[in-house]
Amino acid sequence: MQNLTATSLKIVDQQLWLLDQTLLPHRIEWLAMQTTDALIDAIVTLKVRGAPAIGIAASLLLACQAWAGHSQAVLLADCARLRAARPTAVNLMNNLDRMRQALQQQDYVQASVETATAIFQQDLWLCQQLARHGAALIQPGERILTHCNTGGLATAGIGTALGVIVQAQQDGKQIKVWVDETRPLLQGGRLTAWELTQQQVPYQLICDNMAGMLMAQGLVDRIFVGADRIAANGDFANKVGTYSLAVLAHYHQIPFYVVAPSTTVDLACHNGAAIPIEQRAAAEVWGVSGAIGPHGLLQQSRWAPADAPVYNPAFDVTPAALVSGWVLDQGVLTQNDIINGALQQLNG
Amino acid sequence: MQNLTATSLKIVDQQLWLLDQTLLPHRIEWLAMQTTDALIDAIVTLKVRGAPAIGIAASLLLACQAWAGHSQAVLLADCARLRAARPTAVNLMNNLDRMRQALQQQDYVQASVETATAIFQQDLWLCQQLARHGAALIQPGERILTHCNTGGLATAGIGTALGVIVQAQQDGKQIKVWVDETRPLLQGGRLTAWELTQQQVPYQLICDNMAGMLMAQGLVDRIFVGADRIAANGDFANKVGTYSLAVLAHYHQIPFYVVAPSTTVDLACHNGAAIPIEQRAAAEVWGVSGAIGPHGLLQQSRWAPADAPVYNPAFDVTPAALVSGWVLDQGVLTQNDIINGALQQLNG
Repeated sequence: MQNLTATSLKIVDQQLWLLDQTLLPHRIEWLAMQTTDALIDAIVTLKVRGAPAIGIAASLLLACQAWAGHSQAVLLADCARLRAARPTAVNLMNNLDRMRQALQQQDYVQASVETATAIFQQDLWLCQQLARHGAALIQPGERILTHCNTGGLATAGIGTALGVIVQAQQDGKQIKVWVDETRPLLQGGRLTAWELTQQQVPYQLICDNMAGMLMAQGLVDRIFVGADRIAANGDFANKVGTYSLAVLAHYHQIPFYVVAPSTTVDLACHNGAAIPIEQRAAAEVWGVSGAIGPHGLLQQSRWAPADAPVYNPAFDVTPAALVSGWVLDQGVLTQNDIINGALQQLNG
Repeated sequence: MQNLTATSLKIVDQQLWLLDQTLLPHRIEWLAMQTTDALIDAIVTLKVRGAPAIGIAASLLLACQAWAGHSQAVLLADCARLRAARPTAVNLMNNLDRMRQALQQQDYVQASVETATAIFQQDLWLCQQLARHGAALIQPGERILTHCNTGGLATAGIGTALGVIVQAQQDGKQIKVWVDETRPLLQGGRLTAWELTQQQVPYQLICDNMAGMLMAQGLVDRIFVGADRIAANGDFANKVGTYSLAVLAHYHQIPFYVVAPSTTVDLACHNGAAIPIEQRAAAEVWGVSGAIGPHGLLQQSRWAPADAPVYNPAFDVTPAALVSGWVLDQGVLTQNDIINGALQQLNG
């Protein structure tokens, strides 16, 4: 099995390593993934996150375990357990359906290594296509707003929505980025801020509730977000807060784009209401946890009253009617394309 | 000078005490305010916050200092310094303009004590009127959303927007409250959650970016927020995030009310654009600070990268066109009332 390297995951000598995303930006620690249980825990606790990245990590782990001699029966059982680790992102399920087929073949070791490697390489290529199509939408000097983290950390390549933004900067468009901090898990404040610093893209961090007033002041030209699942009618699920941004963008007539590989499209979901939304623990909203700067000590900070009742959906659904364009690897689809069945033709 | 008691401030034996709001809900600590510098620091660091409460605290301190024998010249200088401590809330300025007049009188000790006591008692009475008018709008069983903290902690009485909510519950309406945590300073997650627990009003805490999806699901019947300043045309400034809620409420056709005493109206501001908006330190968005549960230890938690650029306005402006009603002590004003000059007649 060949070595592979991405921002947040890598294969070295038949071993899967993950960059612990709960410790960023304060500590760079790579975790060796040696068991399925360890990876499931890493997925549930968001040590690895981002719809493409979790699907790739799960596929690569199964390939490593096949290479290491695990039995076909164990691998198929592990494949099913990994598939259930998070319910909203469809990439995990799509990738593991491909891995299951590979694991059912006679030469399942070779087949699973080839399939997992292909999933990694395809994601890298998909990111390049998304970045190219999306960056073409951006005019020089634009102020772009984004939510959560959809960059190199979340994929095998340059990213989805954040890949578009980084590509525009690399194309010399001298953009500026507004980064939603993205409560409760702060993927914007921790991860997107860190990636944009690395990539030398100018940005300012804001609290999620400040996006509206920026739009009212005319300080946002365009919005790009990712997707964890796109339904057959163009509705999509993404990190909670995306829907509010879409409504605000609609009110202020600001172009609002979703950026995702076509592997995120799930034709089995007729519309957004059919996408399962993961509810997460109250403790995430009671405070924050993870590595805290400048020294990266692990902390649990809790400000809410003891046992405060909480509502904590990890995702929300944005209806197709609020979307200006769907940036897919095949190109940018419009409202008309969606109504005319373009998503069905992609996978048809 | 008589003893006075409110949720977050009190006069005991001619001494002003403040409940340190940065330590709630984990620690109950009262701070003796012995100098103007101490109170300015408490205002700037939000140990005392809430537009009515800071105006009352500043007035009471001046009365205590007059009683203690400070010279008229010193008192007038301190009055001017306190007036500039925070720029957005007009109550502070209105109250201190009354105190300045009292301090300019020959018997300035007696006059300042009487004026400060009257400001306290009037706020208590104003809160009762707001609660009565606002609660009448609420139907039994409604799900009410609110932002920031506008309760007993922020006033001398039951509160403004949160006073309305608590009153409706006391009236037996069996409501349920959605509490925005209100980043960056978490007045919802810390203070409103604490007050509703004390008052036994059922609530659920949410991150600010979840309000939109609740509205889309039909889970929000009505929204009440406070105001730091209401312009002559009905536009108002309030805690950042209020504007986004107003747009979301408009889109989902959910009634959206601002609740504030008429002392919050500033006819010198023709519209919202004339209201100064305080910009605060980047460190507030880099992380959180204050007392952390369960033991109430003081912590600085910082997750953002070092020197991450930040945009951190403390308030935003909501245009009158997005407001369903202005709940004032005189009653509930409609869009038509505002257009017909009702605000001018209040203070005229």
